Amino acid sequence: MRLACSPPLVVFFVLGAAAAVAAETPPEKLIGFTPERAAAERRLEQGFDAALDPAELKEWMRRLSARPHHIGSPYGKDNAEFLAGLFRGWGFDTRIEEFRVLFPTPKMRGLEMVAPTVFRAALAEPPLKEDPTSGQTAEQLPVYNAYSIDGDVTGELVYVNYGVPRDYDELDRHGIDVKGKVVLARYGGSWRGIKPKVAAEHGAIGCLIYSDPRDDGFFQGDVYPKGPYRNDTGAQRGSVADMPLYPGDPLTPGVGATPEVAHGVDLSRAKTLTKIPVMPISYGDALPLLNALGGAVAPESWRGALPVTYHLGPGPTRVHLKLAFDWRLVPAYDVIARLAGSERPDEWVIRGNHHDAWVNGAEDPISGLVALLAEAKAVGALHKAGWTPKRTIVYAAWDGEEPGLLGSTEWAEAHDAELRKKAVAYVNSDSNGRGFLQVSGSHTLERFINQVARDVPDPETAVSVAERLRARRLVRGDDDDAREVRKEERKELRERPDLRIGALGSGSDYTPFLQHLGIASLSIGFGGENGNGIYHSIYDSFAHYTRFNDPKFEYGVALARVGGRTVLRLAEADVAPFEFTAFADTLGRYVEEVSRLATDMREKSEEDNRLLRDRTLVLAADPQQTYVPPEARQAVPYVNFAPLQNALERVQQSARAFDRARTAREGRPLSPEAQKALDVILMSAEQALTRPEGLPVRPWFRHQVYAPGFYTGYGVKTLPGVREALEQRDWKRAEEQAVVEARTLEAFAAQIDKATAVIEEG
Amino acid sequence: MRLACSPPLVVFFVLGAAAAVAAETPPEKLIGFTPERAAAERRLEQGFDAALDPAELKEWMRRLSARPHHIGSPYGKDNAEFLAGLFRGWGFDTRIEEFRVLFPTPKMRGLEMVAPTVFRAALAEPPLKEDPTSGQTAEQLPVYNAYSIDGDVTGELVYVNYGVPRDYDELDRHGIDVKGKVVLARYGGSWRGIKPKVAAEHGAIGCLIYSDPRDDGFFQGDVYPKGPYRNDTGAQRGSVADMPLYPGDPLTPGVGATPEVAHGVDLSRAKTLTKIPVMPISYGDALPLLNALGGAVAPESWRGALPVTYHLGPGPTRVHLKLAFDWRLVPAYDVIARLAGSERPDEWVIRGNHHDAWVNGAEDPISGLVALLAEAKAVGALHKAGWTPKRTIVYAAWDGEEPGLLGSTEWAEAHDAELRKKAVAYVNSDSNGRGFLQVSGSHTLERFINQVARDVPDPETAVSVAERLRARRLVRGDDDDAREVRKEERKELRERPDLRIGALGSGSDYTPFLQHLGIASLSIGFGGENGNGIYHSIYDSFAHYTRFNDPKFEYGVALARVGGRTVLRLAEADVAPFEFTAFADTLGRYVEEVSRLATDMREKSEEDNRLLRDRTLVLAADPQQTYVPPEARQAVPYVNFAPLQNALERVQQSARAFDRARTAREGRPLSPEAQKALDVILMSAEQALTRPEGLPVRPWFRHQVYAPGFYTGYGVKTLPGVREALEQRDWKRAEEQAVVEARTLEAFAAQIDKATAVIEEG
Repeated sequence: MRLACSPPLVVFFVLGAAAAVAAETPPEKLIGFTPERAAAERRLEQGFDAALDPAELKEWMRRLSARPHHIGSPYGKDNAEFLAGLFRGWGFDTRIEEFRVLFPTPKMRGLEMVAPTVFRAALAEPPLKEDPTSGQTAEQLPVYNAYSIDGDVTGELVYVNYGVPRDYDELDRHGIDVKGKVVLARYGGSWRGIKPKVAAEHGAIGCLIYSDPRDDGFFQGDVYPKGPYRNDTGAQRGSVADMPLYPGDPLTPGVGATPEVAHGVDLSRAKTLTKIPVMPISYGDALPLLNALGGAVAPESWRGALPVTYHLGPGPTRVHLKLAFDWRLVPAYDVIARLAGSERPDEWVIRGNHHDAWVNGAEDPISGLVALLAEAKAVGALHKAGWTPKRTIVYAAWDGEEPGLLGSTEWAEAHDAELRKKAVAYVNSDSNGRGFLQVSGSHTLERFINQVARDVPDPETAVSVAERLRARRLVRGDDDDAREVRKEERKELRERPDLRIGALGSGSDYTPFLQHLGIASLSIGFGGENGNGIYHSIYDSFAHYTRFNDPKFEYGVALARVGGRTVLRLAEADVAPFEFTAFADTLGRYVEEVSRLATDMREKSEEDNRLLRDRTLVLAADPQQTYVPPEARQAVPYVNFAPLQNALERVQQSARAFDRARTAREGRPLSPEAQKALDVILMSAEQALTRPEGLPVRPWFRHQVYAPGFYTGYGVKTLPGVREALEQRDWKRAEEQAVVEARTLEAFAAQIDKATAVIEEG
Repeated sequence: MRLACSPPLVVFFVLGAAAAVAAETPPEKLIGFTPERAAAERRLEQGFDAALDPAELKEWMRRLSARPHHIGSPYGKDNAEFLAGLFRGWGFDTRIEEFRVLFPTPKMRGLEMVAPTVFRAALAEPPLKEDPTSGQTAEQLPVYNAYSIDGDVTGELVYVNYGVPRDYDELDRHGIDVKGKVVLARYGGSWRGIKPKVAAEHGAIGCLIYSDPRDDGFFQGDVYPKGPYRNDTGAQRGSVADMPLYPGDPLTPGVGATPEVAHGVDLSRAKTLTKIPVMPISYGDALPLLNALGGAVAPESWRGALPVTYHLGPGPTRVHLKLAFDWRLVPAYDVIARLAGSERPDEWVIRGNHHDAWVNGAEDPISGLVALLAEAKAVGALHKAGWTPKRTIVYAAWDGEEPGLLGSTEWAEAHDAELRKKAVAYVNSDSNGRGFLQVSGSHTLERFINQVARDVPDPETAVSVAERLRARRLVRGDDDDAREVRKEERKELRERPDLRIGALGSGSDYTPFLQHLGIASLSIGFGGENGNGIYHSIYDSFAHYTRFNDPKFEYGVALARVGGRTVLRLAEADVAPFEFTAFADTLGRYVEEVSRLATDMREKSEEDNRLLRDRTLVLAADPQQTYVPPEARQAVPYVNFAPLQNALERVQQSARAFDRARTAREGRPLSPEAQKALDVILMSAEQALTRPEGLPVRPWFRHQVYAPGFYTGYGVKTLPGVREALEQRDWKRAEEQAVVEARTLEAFAAQIDKATAVIEEG
């Protein structure tokens, strides 16, 4: 780093919005702890930190990523056993739990362009001499999308951009129908499984997904092996199951697929398989297809970085896609390591990261897993030195996350009742990298995780990871057009003591815990400075990671510090460190958002209809291009949000009352019995945000505040019942869901009130 | 056109915001005409329209673009004589006025990459069999930038994006200095002459300008000859003289370079030559240079569409650029055709378009010129049939526009005093194409030109060209982020009877008339639907134009209808059709803009300084990348805009009073003497907006409201004295200029008051 300014201040504990506080400032009070117990906790954390050694993280990564280790692979099993051995060695009560899950692998993959010229797609990533493990071809899974159905289709190609619903609206304006066609979508803009789902809804017969270099390739930076970015042969494997319906084994939704439960493969029961065959390809393979495509020129925002004029088709490019899979049940090996709590053994703090990869997976998932291992080793060492946590700590290394959160989901389903009774929180990590703290999760833990983030120094700057993230948010995306919005954002970033955390959609193993079981969850990691162009490819290797990502494993250690503090504080707190005002504040934003969504949709529908009615749309179009005006929009009625607004008010009042009661109680600790009673209420508060009936259309998803979008996949939809009903223009359902969600929120408020009563009485 | 809707209504006269008015609606009153005279005028225009024949436009284009016809070329002279013959044949008093101007052409052009590999740039556009005139290599000017100095430089390359001042700020953040380097800039983002000017200010020794396919090539659409867009050999010739200082012959600023005035070539007197050698190249020639470039990856918005990772450099790419020119005086032949006015021969309405091209120039400038010819022929026919205009009409075909508005500027300078006395208005066109009306100019003519636009039907839709433009503006750029702004814009578009017209910066022949002489000017044309990738290349040909632009010449005829009505109404009105409330309204926006500019700069400086002071900028940066924080910004003082605001108020009052007086006078026409007196005042009103001293640093530019930006070139700066002082952070000058501009505006208001007095008294 070349800097024309003074050297950085060394600041470890930065409180609130203060930009620089000297190290002698008294440490912040810890939520859930008395001052004395907080001091002990901080001493414990010093011991924890001292046990972290980046060299170990590196060696574990070397070991775990040495060979391909997807679910069902020999090395995957070997890794599970290696991990179990480590946990055992560190003093954990460890077992490997096995499930039997559907995991198809390719028997036949063929893609060729049959017109206007003939081209056979390579569908292969060649070994590179700079990357030793890339040559392990015998053990590598080929490039494919798991849970694509078998198929043999031939059709004209249509380019559909990211392949999300609004892209098909745009195609409609061009008079293009994908019925009977094969669509070519680029990665990005949604979770990949959305693309074939939406394509099939529109009548397509096949789906290709390629990595455009605009989003994932040379446009971003130098390509591998010169730089970290995706080269023209790199392709992204990945699941395309309809996970917004339910994740986990497609054959056993809601049920843990233990060896006893598992039976034959009846694909008709697998509701999450795609409806059409799907195949991922590299941009090298996509180039000839796009180059030959005719029809209208694609809208500007659809164009990628390949050196062609992007056309929409259909044709003259015709492709023949042939896919056949081996539909097998394979064993999933979850490694579960327990350290029983001394005082509250039936309260579990669960910390997980998956261990399976698509190929060697040094970054995904090993970079996160080695931080978890470091945490577990240090916790084990503290235990060996005589300390035992108040609550039980569970470390989990999940198998089969890649195809569909298989290991975590089956485990959560298998232990459903027990987890709902005992789990305090679930803390997830996955890939990790150099840069900025990334944290999302239950807002009942927002204040708690901010305290953690303020106590962990950033390796590169020595301010706390919270302060560095604050700096990033203050500087990021400075855009004149949105100046007023940015002014408000900056004001809040400077004045609000806590940084806001994101809500969880899906994409990693927190989903079954948070959204199926209602266990408060957090997702933690670092990133934003490491170039990444090897996601789900054979080049996600030890060689790549240690050249381009976090070569010194200092962000691995930083993640271990964040994860370790999170687990230790959750395990050690006198009272589980939940808090409700941040949730109530965030909920207020969500209620405001859905109500504004209805208003915006109403105004937009009126405006769109007006532009249609007075022929403005047609007059503004080029008559030499095909332009099909949209259908007139149904008017958006006024939806009754009052139940939601009243429920919000109730939650806000309850949150403030809880806060007041807790503050009033400071210096007068609760009795141990009252603490225990309070814990039980707090632990299950998040469950009050769920309904056994789940969300409309997808009962597996029970959380009423956070869900992955039915048409986004990764992307969260908050207050999903109301929000998705609005988005789908189902006004009746929106109004019904407002009532349903309001009732849920009121039950949640009642739960908070119970906690408040315990404090006041205990 | 495939449309899923009812056939278009036939609407010729559309009044105000009404979307569809039946043809029997009484015609709109015409500004400057009594109702009876307006009816006669409209009958005259019917006769005018009937004389327009698209086949003639096509044949004139074929003739005029048949061979290369740049200034000084044999065919350029031939064209001038041909044009003069046409005008004479149509009954105009026609002469060719000759000037002697500096026009360098290349003797030596060499560009090679000397490291890290060797590559010699082709610097040539090959003939194409699909384009017959592209093979006329003996007469073509090669690819070059006129008024680049001679030079022989070798240096490391730095990529500077568009090469505008803020791009160098960004390079500063990366610690990159262009001193002693050759810069590679892409076309776009400013007028091309700004790029070498700014590069030289920063110490660069040479400048290459290439056409990136993102802005001008395959990213936009299929390339020539398959489609209309620029192919990998196409390059953009063009002037790089410092025209924001003064346009016209570099040797004779302010003086008409008649053969008597012209003497030897003393380049030390040519203040507008570049300081460093400059060369335009194709993207085919740029690709190897960019591909070899190292250093940091360019910011995302800097990256083009070439299939490389865009790096900033400097080096390892080193280039050797060698340029030598033949610095000659050449003759410029302006064709000037007059039809003397019957009642007011000393009031001139001037209509111009240039005739010189860079090569064959079918689009630029012949597509505009053939519309002007059609107008002149039709006017001549009306005259032959017995009609004579009230005022004198002057048609002008300018030479030497391409190198630097040479013909128009020298003519305007040579006839300075006469023009300031006699000119009513100047109406310019240049390239023309299929699509939407494009009109900019003096806001004293905004209402007038809107009336014209409402009376001309759009060829493709049969609503008026005004209504079609309104539709375009209503639909264009619908962006959620700016929704509130768009709401206001749409409201205005629907409710304000007149469409706003843009202000004129520079880029065509109106500049000497408007900005040097203070003659109210308009620029008219059509475009927006034709793909254009042949600008200033050998492929700007009859073959290209008639395939991709306006094959039926229906927009050529539409331009003739607009231009013809504009000229005829200006020539025939009882009183020159100026109006001041639209100007006052627009001026209010400009005053508001400059005052908000100061506020925004103040807030941004404070915010930037805060982010610097509290180390946020450094904390948000990646320590593994070079990041040099900016210098602290000088605080922005409060600038006294009160003089401007008071002057604005005065102009607004005067404008309203003029309007009231005129309305009160309806039905009681002024005496012929009063009309004449009023005309003289109105004609010179725009001159009241000029100062003989001109703008700071550039006295040639006398207009105090409209000027091309000193650092934009084409782009207008309104209230340039104040605005550019603010932009250059010269607070003292900003305050002085506010007083200067206020005084000018008050003189303008006084001029309006004089006109009002004539109406009230006459």
